Amino acid sequence: MEKFITMSYGSGGKKTSELIEKIILPKINSSELKKLGDGAILKISTEDIVFSTDSFVVNPIFFPGGDIGKLSVCGTVNDLLVCGSVPKFISLSFIIEEGFELNKFEKLLDSISEAAVKAGVKIVTGDTKVVEKDFGNDIYINTAGIGEKIKNVALDKDKIKKDDVIVVSGEVGNHGIAVFAEREHLFEEQLLSDCNNLNNVVFEILKNKDDVRFLRDPTRGGLATTLNELCENMDFSFQLFEEEIPINRKVKSVCDLYGLDPLYSANEGIVIAIVSEKVGIKIVKALNKMDDGKNAKIIGYVTEEIGGKVLLKNKFGSIKVLDKLAYDMLPRIC
Amino acid sequence: MEKFITMSYGSGGKKTSELIEKIILPKINSSELKKLGDGAILKISTEDIVFSTDSFVVNPIFFPGGDIGKLSVCGTVNDLLVCGSVPKFISLSFIIEEGFELNKFEKLLDSISEAAVKAGVKIVTGDTKVVEKDFGNDIYINTAGIGEKIKNVALDKDKIKKDDVIVVSGEVGNHGIAVFAEREHLFEEQLLSDCNNLNNVVFEILKNKDDVRFLRDPTRGGLATTLNELCENMDFSFQLFEEEIPINRKVKSVCDLYGLDPLYSANEGIVIAIVSEKVGIKIVKALNKMDDGKNAKIIGYVTEEIGGKVLLKNKFGSIKVLDKLAYDMLPRIC
Repeated sequence: MEKFITMSYGSGGKKTSELIEKIILPKINSSELKKLGDGAILKISTEDIVFSTDSFVVNPIFFPGGDIGKLSVCGTVNDLLVCGSVPKFISLSFIIEEGFELNKFEKLLDSISEAAVKAGVKIVTGDTKVVEKDFGNDIYINTAGIGEKIKNVALDKDKIKKDDVIVVSGEVGNHGIAVFAEREHLFEEQLLSDCNNLNNVVFEILKNKDDVRFLRDPTRGGLATTLNELCENMDFSFQLFEEEIPINRKVKSVCDLYGLDPLYSANEGIVIAIVSEKVGIKIVKALNKMDDGKNAKIIGYVTEEIGGKVLLKNKFGSIKVLDKLAYDMLPRIC
Repeated sequence: MEKFITMSYGSGGKKTSELIEKIILPKINSSELKKLGDGAILKISTEDIVFSTDSFVVNPIFFPGGDIGKLSVCGTVNDLLVCGSVPKFISLSFIIEEGFELNKFEKLLDSISEAAVKAGVKIVTGDTKVVEKDFGNDIYINTAGIGEKIKNVALDKDKIKKDDVIVVSGEVGNHGIAVFAEREHLFEEQLLSDCNNLNNVVFEILKNKDDVRFLRDPTRGGLATTLNELCENMDFSFQLFEEEIPINRKVKSVCDLYGLDPLYSANEGIVIAIVSEKVGIKIVKALNKMDDGKNAKIIGYVTEEIGGKVLLKNKFGSIKVLDKLAYDMLPRIC
């Protein structure tokens, strides 16, 4: 085989078969994928499913703590989890730029495979397209996923009430700033993206059933944008305490230096949970015992004094409003 | 709003919300999409589902008979159909190149919406990313789809037997040659792509239950490549009659002129059905009464004299072997 992907690999003919059979299938262990059907026939054990999709265009495709392959699995897995489902099946679709190195592609396939195993999902169907040089950027990946809805879990922002507390499961902003730092060649001592699947964290939180009101993973737009979307047109606001928000020292220094804001920086491995006051501390303690949740904290609470705002109180007691991200702080972060 | 898509539309912030709420949601009528969750929660009424995905990179994005929007819906719908399922839900994910005209995007949304209604699928979840100028080509679209498996239909190439017949539901090669002709500005009198959903055609064929062995839509690589994939490593071969294969006059003349082969040209609205000899003529007659199947024909049969080959007999009785597409006849056709 060539060392680079050529247009023929996207033709649907011999070269496409070669790519699939010699490169993709040996790396991705999946009986469904091996059948090479137009689709995968799957067994579902509940009537209620969750369906989600994301395309990934992150640049660079390899970054500290992950790559576009791992990200594309974790991103869709996490979307399925925060909707209250157990992730089961993933589709995998590539748009590859002509000239992309086969050995890099193989590295990505390894990451994808490893991430899928870790998250407990099977890759069951896929597609590969190739576009000419300068009509892509190495590789774009789309994943879609199907999860089985967990019985008796109904996450709904309408259930959010006064005095509920806001838990984040880890440091805020790491992914966005790690990708930025890699792009700008900033560090010797590396800052890692938080890119990770949230299975353990979400299942731990969901043990508290009805006391869990809503979950969301703050990806593009970060913590501030996600919370804004959540309280938009609602009767409640979120009151955050700046001092309580876990932010990595290195993230803080890059942000200070470049005028970025970690609260608007993307995350790919943390979840925001809005839970009852009653279970907030219990959840944080349980998460803190886990590797994936060791930096979990309560960062604020729900107030009904005003509706639709995200309010940030600093250590001196002054409050500012955090709006949605209005411009493009960091493009191509996921 | 601007007249062009800018990087901010992919930020996940205010501009992304604006694009979704002011442009996408008004065009795509979907209660699930309106919830703007990380995924859609759906009810499924069978235990067996079909899951499929495709990314679309066709160039140009508008072509006679369709556009990348219609194609992205029909492509996934057809994959679900040929696996023996009723298409139900579709995800929709855009990778847009910075500078893409908003009015073209709106046109595509209209096509997508219309195609989804016609095919009876709901668009339930989606994603939008924007990449810098020269890192894309107007727009790439990924769809994934979920179909409900039809009970008592089990399509399997292992069921294909000696003397089964090969039905094609329409003219062969139209999509590929129509896109090629548009790209090269060949025609005044337009040749239309066959881009269409196959619901009517497939449901009509499936009335014949166990007599239907296998279905496939011959997209990339065309009829010849699809049949080759089907008989690879099998004990049977396909014997085709050149004179019986329905080919549009205009497709024929473009192919003659440019040295292309319609049998390797992509289709996006026909199906190949391998069915028992008993029901072959009955199926063709039923299809011929329908608009979508008016050019349906029996084009050959299954033989066990030799295994794993696609054989083409011309009007003089001489036979040649049709191999898989070895090179890239027409890139970026879907």
